[in-house]
Amino acid sequence: MIFCDIGNTNAHLLIKERLHVKSIKEFLKLSFDEKVYYICVNDNIKSLLHVRKNFFDLEPYITFDTKYRGMGIDRICACKAVNDGIVVDAGSAITVDIMKNKKHMGGYILPGLTAYNTAYSSISTRLQLDIDKDVKLDKIPKNTKEAISYAAIKSIKLIIKNSAKNRKIYFSGGDGEYLAGFFKNAIYDKMLVLKVLQKTFDVLKASQGD
Amino acid sequence: MIFCDIGNTNAHLLIKERLHVKSIKEFLKLSFDEKVYYICVNDNIKSLLHVRKNFFDLEPYITFDTKYRGMGIDRICACKAVNDGIVVDAGSAITVDIMKNKKHMGGYILPGLTAYNTAYSSISTRLQLDIDKDVKLDKIPKNTKEAISYAAIKSIKLIIKNSAKNRKIYFSGGDGEYLAGFFKNAIYDKMLVLKVLQKTFDVLKASQGD
Repeated sequence: MIFCDIGNTNAHLLIKERLHVKSIKEFLKLSFDEKVYYICVNDNIKSLLHVRKNFFDLEPYITFDTKYRGMGIDRICACKAVNDGIVVDAGSAITVDIMKNKKHMGGYILPGLTAYNTAYSSISTRLQLDIDKDVKLDKIPKNTKEAISYAAIKSIKLIIKNSAKNRKIYFSGGDGEYLAGFFKNAIYDKMLVLKVLQKTFDVLKASQGD
Repeated sequence: MIFCDIGNTNAHLLIKERLHVKSIKEFLKLSFDEKVYYICVNDNIKSLLHVRKNFFDLEPYITFDTKYRGMGIDRICACKAVNDGIVVDAGSAITVDIMKNKKHMGGYILPGLTAYNTAYSSISTRLQLDIDKDVKLDKIPKNTKEAISYAAIKSIKLIIKNSAKNRKIYFSGGDGEYLAGFFKNAIYDKMLVLKVLQKTFDVLKASQGD
């Protein structure tokens, strides 16, 4: 069987305990002989998946106790993987959630790095430059490319640091490993969401005595 | 005479010592009997202004010593108005610059609040919500609107605070007054740029013995 977390930009697939990342376009071209147990936050393709007969949506079987309203199922899964600490899923958006004794305290949503590029490009052609992940955060910028890169990355770093204090920070998502590099108390786990899908499946299977 | 700072979204006009703010569309419809001394960072309309015979571009007369490359003329003017401190011009983009003993140390560029909205909307229709300026920054968000508002505003606040430490922060621009509200050491001066235009004109006039 295959476990799959389908986002707005990419799909993350767990096939024989190995992670595969595909763009949504690539993913839709794939055909699978095995059963695919998935979650999907991408409203554009949800209906396409519902009609595939070997596709099985795990979302209805995932419960999560929180006062937060409107939490995406991928974000819920990342939080379920952590008992205590900060949960950062850095993809198209960067979601940051706070877990305390298995309880979800709330969270917030930053734009992902690509969305920062979109923001800058929307202001002026002069700001149509890609963010440079190698920018130094301890030197005041001296040109436009440094200026947008420093501002986007340092502001993300500072708000996560402000939330985390000395607590552990669990990173996942496409830019998770990169952002984890800024923190001593960071753990990067690219399987954070997929592990919860697998666990949900195991519990479901056990409950059905199958 | 009229002094005018033309940005990517709005034009700020100083007419008889009073400030008027017009959208670029509104501004282009206006006709002026008096001479208009202006600066313009909006590349889309620069050529339209050059052919207006009572319009006079002050940019060539504004000098600024910095190692920073690619600084917009509006940002240069805001910095020229400050000898020591942090200079924040919060418009379509939020530029943050550091001045020390009349010397420009460098700076960085955050998206403006509208550009944050554009960034969120580009990710998913679920994030197509306007940022709520009244969001509380001391409470962890419990829904999507709070989550994007908190993240955008708090990350802006934290990076400015990190740059400023205890130095004075001079705010201008459309969201300048709002952002100044987060800092004890803030000064809001909506005329920061226009005052430098007026001063440039005065020096120019004096040098021409006119």
